[in-house]
Amino acid sequence: MMQKKNSGLDIDLGDHCSRIAYGWAKKTFANRSGKAGAPCMQIDGAFSNVMDFHGVHIGISSDGIGTKVEIAERTGIYDTLGYDLIAMVVDDLVANGIEPVNVSNILDVDFLDARIVDQLMRGLHDAANYAGVAVTGGEIAELGSRVSGYGERMHFNWCATAIGILPADRSIIDGALVQPDDVIIALNSRGFRSNGFSLVRKVLSEKFGADWHRQKYDEEKSWGEMVLTPSWIYAPLIVGLLSQHFDIRGIAHITGGGIADNFGRVLERNNLGALLDHLFPPNEMMITLQEFGNLDEETVYRLWNMGNGMLLVVPPQQVNDILKFIADQNYRAQIAGHIIEQPEIIIDSAGCDPRVLVTREE
Amino acid sequence: MMQKKNSGLDIDLGDHCSRIAYGWAKKTFANRSGKAGAPCMQIDGAFSNVMDFHGVHIGISSDGIGTKVEIAERTGIYDTLGYDLIAMVVDDLVANGIEPVNVSNILDVDFLDARIVDQLMRGLHDAANYAGVAVTGGEIAELGSRVSGYGERMHFNWCATAIGILPADRSIIDGALVQPDDVIIALNSRGFRSNGFSLVRKVLSEKFGADWHRQKYDEEKSWGEMVLTPSWIYAPLIVGLLSQHFDIRGIAHITGGGIADNFGRVLERNNLGALLDHLFPPNEMMITLQEFGNLDEETVYRLWNMGNGMLLVVPPQQVNDILKFIADQNYRAQIAGHIIEQPEIIIDSAGCDPRVLVTREE
Repeated sequence: MMQKKNSGLDIDLGDHCSRIAYGWAKKTFANRSGKAGAPCMQIDGAFSNVMDFHGVHIGISSDGIGTKVEIAERTGIYDTLGYDLIAMVVDDLVANGIEPVNVSNILDVDFLDARIVDQLMRGLHDAANYAGVAVTGGEIAELGSRVSGYGERMHFNWCATAIGILPADRSIIDGALVQPDDVIIALNSRGFRSNGFSLVRKVLSEKFGADWHRQKYDEEKSWGEMVLTPSWIYAPLIVGLLSQHFDIRGIAHITGGGIADNFGRVLERNNLGALLDHLFPPNEMMITLQEFGNLDEETVYRLWNMGNGMLLVVPPQQVNDILKFIADQNYRAQIAGHIIEQPEIIIDSAGCDPRVLVTREE
Repeated sequence: MMQKKNSGLDIDLGDHCSRIAYGWAKKTFANRSGKAGAPCMQIDGAFSNVMDFHGVHIGISSDGIGTKVEIAERTGIYDTLGYDLIAMVVDDLVANGIEPVNVSNILDVDFLDARIVDQLMRGLHDAANYAGVAVTGGEIAELGSRVSGYGERMHFNWCATAIGILPADRSIIDGALVQPDDVIIALNSRGFRSNGFSLVRKVLSEKFGADWHRQKYDEEKSWGEMVLTPSWIYAPLIVGLLSQHFDIRGIAHITGGGIADNFGRVLERNNLGALLDHLFPPNEMMITLQEFGNLDEETVYRLWNMGNGMLLVVPPQQVNDILKFIADQNYRAQIAGHIIEQPEIIIDSAGCDPRVLVTREE
C-alpha cells in the first residue's frame, strides 16, 4: 500500500478504527450471500459497496459534514450546508461510477429551532435538485447536551447516506483500467468543501481570537462567510460524462487525506503513480490561511483540497472532447498531469517546490 | 388525523420540524421521476419511502439510538448497543413489509478509542448476523467538543440507515387492508429498546443521584445494566411470516410516541380503532420506574413501549397458525385485542383502568 511520506505514523488512529469497523462489517456480508443485497463488487480501501438486488446494482455511501457546521452556527447562515452534505455523499458514490439517486439524512440537535431546521432543509432541497437526487428519508434526533457547538442557538451535527445505481451496461470505476500516460484532469474547487475545518478553525482563532468569523475578509465578506463557501457538487457532471460513454478510468473525490489518500487509492489499483504539474492553485483564501498558520505544503495538501475537488483519469485521445463537455456544463477543469510508471504522486505545480507527496512501499 | 388526547399541544415541536423536513424533501421527489430511485409508494406519516429501481422496489429508513448511548458510557458496556441500532432501522422497514438487507452506520465521536469502537462494531456485527443483514457502509467522524456525554471516556452518537427490498409479489403493508374484528397480536419487549431514555435518566437521577447507574437493581444487576437491556429484533420473525404468505395486514413498531402514534398511523389508514384488552404488561423494571417517577399511564404509554415492541394486525382465521409460527421462532407473542369501528385506541389491560389513549378528530 501507499505510505504517507514523512507523516510519522503510517497508520493513524482514524485509519485504525475504520479498519476495525470494516473488519467487523465484512464478516456480515455472508448474511446476504445469494440473496438481495449481497455485496458484489468490493471497492478497495473505501467503505462503500455495490450490492446486487436481483440484477440491479445498488451502491451505498455515508458521510457527514463534520465541524463545518460550526461555521453556520457562527454566521447564522444555514441554507448552504445542504450543498456540502449532498456533495459529500453523492460525490463519493459517483467517484466509483455509481449514479446517485436517493439521499436519507440524519440531523442530531441539542434542542429544536424550527426556523433553523427550515433553512437547513431548504438548502438540502436546493442541493438535491442541483444533484438530481431525491431526499427519500430523514430523521431528526433531539439529543440534549450530547450535541454542542458555538453560541446559544440550536446546535447540530448532520450526516447522510446516499444510494445510487450502477447502470447495467457499466462496470465500477476503481482505477483498474488506469495506465501510464493517461491524462489527469482536475476539477476546480472554490473552497474547503467539508474537510479540514479543525485546522481552518485553529488557524483563524489563533489569528483573530474567539470571534474570528466576524473579522472582515474583504469589503464584502467576513472570514466566517468565506470559509462557509458551499461545495460544488460534481455528480451531475460525472453522470453526464458517463452517460456519454466517455472512458473515465479513475476518479478521486478529494476529501480528508487530500490527494495523497484519495488519488492514492485509485493509483494503487495498478501500482502506478502520477506527476501533477498543473493542478489548480488554491484560491486566495486558502493561501492566506496557509500563511496565517505558517503551514507547510505537506500539511495543507493532506488536509485541504487545495483547489482541486476531483481528479479524473482519462485516455489522451479523449481529453479534448472531455474538456469541452465539462466546459459546456459550466464546470471548471484543466489538464493537471499524467500517469507515470513509478508508484509515487509527485506534485510540481501551484508555485511550490516539486515534492513527492506519497511513495509506495512493499 | 389522530389527536393526542389530553396532551396539551396537538402538534409538538418535534412533529412540526419533521413536517418541515418532509415538506422540503417531498419537493425533491420529482428529480427521479421516470428514473431509477423514483419514490413510488408513499408511506403516510412515516418518513420512509419505497423507490423503484427498474422494477426492483427498494425501501430506505434512517434512525439513531438517541441517549441510550449514555447508558453504555456509564456502564462501560458497549457491545449491546448494536442490537438497539439494528433494531431501530430494520424494524421500521419491516413494519411496512420491506425485507431489510443492508445497513450503513455513522458513528460521531469526540475523540477515538479503538477499544470502544471495536466493542461497538462487534455488537453491530452480532446484531446484523441475528437480523440477517449485511453492514455495507460506515463512517466514523471525529467531531471534538461537538459530541459530549457522561464521564471521561470516548463520547459518541450513533445512527444508521437501512435499505431493504419489497419482494416483487408483495405490496407494502400500511394498514390499508385492516378491517373491523381483525385480531391484534402483540410481540413482547424486554426493555426500553431505544426510546424514552430522557425520562428513564430523569427518573433514576432524581431517585438515586448522579451515579444512579451503579445502584443495585437486584443481587445480580445494577440499574445501569438493567436499562441497557438490548432490543429484541423482530425483523427476522416478520420476514419469516411474510415469506410463509401469512396475511399480515398492519404492523406497528412501537417507538417514540408509543402505541398511540405508531399504531395510530396504521389504524388511521382506514379510520378504524382498536380495543387492546390483553397487552403484555410492562416488566418489573418499567413498573418500578413508573412508581419512582410517579408517572401516570398516559405519559408512560406515550414514551415507553410498556412491554409491547410490535403490534400485528391479522385476520381471525389465521391467528392460531401465526401464533404457532411465532412460538416456533422463539419470540413471545399473545393476542392483545381486536380492531373496532370507532376511531379510538382503547387500552383496557395491564392492570390499569380502561382509558382511551387516542381518539380521532376531523
